[in-house]
Amino acid sequence: MISGTTILIAHMGYPTHSFKAPLIYNPWFDHRGIDAVVVPMGVQAPDYPAFFRPLFRLTNIRGALVTMPHKVTTVDLVDELTPTAQIAGAANAVLRRDDGTLLGDQFDGAGFVRGVQRKGVELTGRRALVVGSGGVGSAIAASLAGAGVGTLAVFDAQAVAADALAGRISKNYPDIEVVTGSKDPDGYDVVVNATPLGMEPGDPLPVDVSRIAPGTFVGEVVMTREITPFLQAAQERGCPVQVGKDMLFEQIPAYLEFFGFGTTTPDELRAVSRVEG
Amino acid sequence: MISGTTILIAHMGYPTHSFKAPLIYNPWFDHRGIDAVVVPMGVQAPDYPAFFRPLFRLTNIRGALVTMPHKVTTVDLVDELTPTAQIAGAANAVLRRDDGTLLGDQFDGAGFVRGVQRKGVELTGRRALVVGSGGVGSAIAASLAGAGVGTLAVFDAQAVAADALAGRISKNYPDIEVVTGSKDPDGYDVVVNATPLGMEPGDPLPVDVSRIAPGTFVGEVVMTREITPFLQAAQERGCPVQVGKDMLFEQIPAYLEFFGFGTTTPDELRAVSRVEG
Repeated sequence: MISGTTILIAHMGYPTHSFKAPLIYNPWFDHRGIDAVVVPMGVQAPDYPAFFRPLFRLTNIRGALVTMPHKVTTVDLVDELTPTAQIAGAANAVLRRDDGTLLGDQFDGAGFVRGVQRKGVELTGRRALVVGSGGVGSAIAASLAGAGVGTLAVFDAQAVAADALAGRISKNYPDIEVVTGSKDPDGYDVVVNATPLGMEPGDPLPVDVSRIAPGTFVGEVVMTREITPFLQAAQERGCPVQVGKDMLFEQIPAYLEFFGFGTTTPDELRAVSRVEG
Repeated sequence: MISGTTILIAHMGYPTHSFKAPLIYNPWFDHRGIDAVVVPMGVQAPDYPAFFRPLFRLTNIRGALVTMPHKVTTVDLVDELTPTAQIAGAANAVLRRDDGTLLGDQFDGAGFVRGVQRKGVELTGRRALVVGSGGVGSAIAASLAGAGVGTLAVFDAQAVAADALAGRISKNYPDIEVVTGSKDPDGYDVVVNATPLGMEPGDPLPVDVSRIAPGTFVGEVVMTREITPFLQAAQERGCPVQVGKDMLFEQIPAYLEFFGFGTTTPDELRAVSRVEG
């Protein structure tokens, strides 16, 4: 029940019709008795910069969820970025801290990493390959770096994108060995498809699966179907996998912690949410 | 249940803690199955002008409720004002019309007038006296003018305030006889206290009640108690009365109509609201 004491979390993007966050966060706030609400705000790109700063002057706002098309723009509008957001080159969450300054963070990759860790995979010191250096690939690479991998290979068909991402990783995590120029999965402990390959029938596989060793953990960002051809091929080789949708519910506890609402589990969220999944 | 299709009504003011509107409007939206929500937004005075226009660029906003300290400032921020808002010199509601332009209106007086009319009092052509030309007095005078009174007397201890109000009434309603300079209630059909007199013990009565004819309709804006000394004195003379709180629930249907959500009654609102009254 919204009242004059309710804390606001703005959910900014455009269009708003497919927004899922209000249907997950708000039932959870109710369930936990937390006086907060996620409010969808449809903002078109040209209107975003002028709205952004005044919004965070509201006395009852704590932060914002940021989605398309504003994730990259947000980088230049906040006061500070976490290393994850710096590496990703994008922010999908903003926290107004007690002193009024705005911190941008990026949780697209946190959902992936938390899912992997929940499946019992140790990441510290391990070797990971992320294929695709776009928004989601950069975010996953950033979160893998934050989780302490020892070697991180990033690959993109556009070499310049992978090279730029590699530079941002090295700047923030100088101790990590960063590799570019190959998508050969041989010798990696974790292999991630962060390209769109697998969305369309007939897409080629993102990497040569015959080069993935059995036991390598294989992750996927494509969500159009649960088991993509890539995941199916990996499973046939005896690899444990993570499906694309696991990222979604896994990232919400990270957001809730960021905003200071405590934490939860994907299972609790699924139990109370009004979204199927 | 808020979703990506929900229409927003911002409720702007500061502080927000005592806001009642979300507790009345939102249960009514639920009750009627209307996909809309009133969202409290705490805005301090210096931040208001910069926030105002960007807010109404949101793709899912329909309008705003405006309360202290922004009612007067809003007059200069909208594209157009209704005659009621022009006379009141203040706006407490903003509608974003289909063409994107912003219309300001003022419903503090509408609540008073609707309450009077609901009690069966005909206002067309009648003679009304409003004592007090501050915010609420100006709003009530504006709504009485809009309801078609024939003669409208306005009085304030600060004569300049009453004279300015009289000028705004005459400009918008040239056919109404506007009277200033006296608070003698003799000969009026409706007499309204729109001063704070009656809030404190020992306050003098706002007008000389011995000059009010039995049968004159007497209204009050003070809400600190149901029957103020003024209303009690009027009742003892045989006058029908309207208590201050009647304005509150009576004005909400006017707001809902303004925003295009259909209409309701104070009884239905009371039945579903989470506010006592």
